[in-house]
Amino acid sequence: MFSVTVRDHMMVAHSLRGDVFGPAQRLHGATYVVDATFRRRDLDADGLVVDIGRATEELRAVLADLTYRNLDEEPALAGVNTTTEALARVIADRLAERARGGSLGGAAQELESVVVTLHESHVAWASYERPL
Amino acid sequence: MFSVTVRDHMMVAHSLRGDVFGPAQRLHGATYVVDATFRRRDLDADGLVVDIGRATEELRAVLADLTYRNLDEEPALAGVNTTTEALARVIADRLAERARGGSLGGAAQELESVVVTLHESHVAWASYERPL
Amino acid sequence: MFSVTVRDHMMVAHSLRGDVFGPAQRLHGATYVVDATFRRRDLDADGLVVDIGRATEELRAVLADLTYRNLDEEPALAGVNTTTEALARVIADRLAERARGGSLGGAAQELESVVVTLHESHVAWASYERPL
Amino acid sequence: MFSVTVRDHMMVAHSLRGDVFGPAQRLHGATYVVDATFRRRDLDADGLVVDIGRATEELRAVLADLTYRNLDEEPALAGVNTTTEALARVIADRLAERARGGSLGGAAQELESVVVTLHESHVAWASYERPL
Amino acid sequence: MFSVTVRDHMMVAHSLRGDVFGPAQRLHGATYVVDATFRRRDLDADGLVVDIGRATEELRAVLADLTYRNLDEEPALAGVNTTTEALARVIADRLAERARGGSLGGAAQELESVVVTLHESHVAWASYERPL
Amino acid sequence: MFSVTVRDHMMVAHSLRGDVFGPAQRLHGATYVVDATFRRRDLDADGLVVDIGRATEELRAVLADLTYRNLDEEPALAGVNTTTEALARVIADRLAERARGGSLGGAAQELESVVVTLHESHVAWASYERPL
Repeated sequence: MFSVTVRDHMMVAHSLRGDVFGPAQRLHGATYVVDATFRRRDLDADGLVVDIGRATEELRAVLADLTYRNLDEEPALAGVNTTTEALARVIADRLAERARGGSLGGAAQELESVVVTLHESHVAWASYERPL
Repeated sequence: MFSVTVRDHMMVAHSLRGDVFGPAQRLHGATYVVDATFRRRDLDADGLVVDIGRATEELRAVLADLTYRNLDEEPALAGVNTTTEALARVIADRLAERARGGSLGGAAQELESVVVTLHESHVAWASYERPL
Repeated sequence: MFSVTVRDHMMVAHSLRGDVFGPAQRLHGATYVVDATFRRRDLDADGLVVDIGRATEELRAVLADLTYRNLDEEPALAGVNTTTEALARVIADRLAERARGGSLGGAAQELESVVVTLHESHVAWASYERPL
Repeated sequence: MFSVTVRDHMMVAHSLRGDVFGPAQRLHGATYVVDATFRRRDLDADGLVVDIGRATEELRAVLADLTYRNLDEEPALAGVNTTTEALARVIADRLAERARGGSLGGAAQELESVVVTLHESHVAWASYERPL
Repeated sequence: MFSVTVRDHMMVAHSLRGDVFGPAQRLHGATYVVDATFRRRDLDADGLVVDIGRATEELRAVLADLTYRNLDEEPALAGVNTTTEALARVIADRLAERARGGSLGGAAQELESVVVTLHESHVAWASYERPL
Repeated sequence: MFSVTVRDHMMVAHSLRGDVFGPAQRLHGATYVVDATFRRRDLDADGLVVDIGRATEELRAVLADLTYRNLDEEPALAGVNTTTEALARVIADRLAERARGGSLGGAAQELESVVVTLHESHVAWASYERPL
């Protein structure tokens, strides 16, 4: 099995709902350093899992809709408790939707799965993996 | 599949038994930067794999019993060759025992597995994964 | 010249005032991974610049007053454009005040300066150095 | 499941063939920081997945045949588009061949798989996993 | 004293002239992860050393003239032994020239110096600092 | 001003003397990831601060006398409280002695200073700088 990973980041405000979150129930924020990993059984005719340049552009496009925002006020996230793991799923789902729409090129139809990892600090991170 | 990882560290002395270890048969030491990863199929009602704060406390508690010690003299490790990979198992087993005891909260009963990674330097690390 | 550095982090919401900030004028947030470096010409009688444990506690105490907050609403920061470099100064000033008050121990009176570095992402950080 | 990872690097020139590569069709180069991960179900009698010293030597030996070279002129890579993911496979295959030849010791026959990850920058990396 | 640092990278081929370089006399290559640090005594009216967005664009522009190239054939580098430390100076000089031309904004005229650090691997890097 | 840095590591046992050290008074250990930085005003005729290969060998030679040992029993360190900052000085002094002896080549006589940084974990490190 092969994989390719690209990294970018976003900077957001948000608050979390639920007693378990303690002080994180207050409005605060995070830089999420985001890794998107694309997995595939075989390489394409160019020797690629996915073009790193294109993957980078796709990740940037998905993060552009989230960064420099207060996620508590994003209509698309209404009702979502924006934990690190839940945001990993949001980003993975959006990347998957774009990949299915052809944004990563035709050969990318062979991709098996995508893993999105959000690093919220140097001591904590979360991931979500889903099929493509 | 979701995962959440938290990081901490411990600083220990030890020696390794066996010709394969060469100079590491002498009493020496290591800082182990320890990553504990909790894996789970679905998020709980709060949108969590496990609360990062609680996971951090659990990892700290497990490492508190090992750090600032000479592992060669720890009764609980008698007969264990304390290689990096063997220590990863010790820590994973202790985290698993605590999780089963409820230390990570009730919803943590849904956790599928824990992975513990010990970084012994910038150029070597070892992991152990086990079910929860 | 000797130095000792300890690392911790804080997670805050804020917005920046001024056209130069573009989208960062919106309410957003950041994880700041914070390094506090203490510099000193000679070691004390224990062979220390400053005790790492104590330095870690001091940094944690300073960050505890800022983390999990919306900095736009912090009275102590009223009128401050909370850029990364300005926050580095705020934290360095607070550490300096505590050090002068004796929180780092008597020998810490020999410290020459403190440097505070805030990493706002994997691709950008800022520092401020001041005398102690 | 256990794993042990060792890290080294190589510095090579190469060019890539295909319109998808844009400017990377020109002769350029890369530092690949290379992680080799060995996976195994149980530890051997010494408490090891594989001896870290030996694994480090094996990885160094494999990289010594590639580093400080122009890969476009390496006979062994003729016809290979030397993408990051394709190079991960080349290195994994060479490590596997050496392991089967006994270079990692007899107990290493129990290894299940090897994963090779090549970091081409701080924002992109690729992996290949294969059985041993 | 304040500083702001931004990070980017370039991927180049080159060879080095001189017996001291051993195998690096052959055509090979490197990824240089490049940090550009801008230093300044006081913050400007916006609370900035330099706008991180603008600094990032300037660094990208300078690296765009070098990346995905064989430095042995760059007319601008004719006669330069392109060691890591020499390339740090080339990049710092180009950033300085652009800064003096106003590319970082008027307030950037107050910048005292720029430091450029090139990481050639996880175990070696070089820096050059010059006044602005 | 130019600098070149190389990185290696050592793994040692030791204990610290003095109430300030709390649990670190017990025999424990550390991995020190060690960075040696050589500083110089101008480049030599080859375009170098110091040859990275030679600097790497020198650092390895100095660390070889310390690694895989219990520092409490090293005659050369008798009476030294082996704090991270004190060990940084020991290593810097040994590198300086070797450099003056010619181990880094004749041109290295132009080096101005050496900085040694010991990372004891992902959250704490110490440095010592001295002239050459």
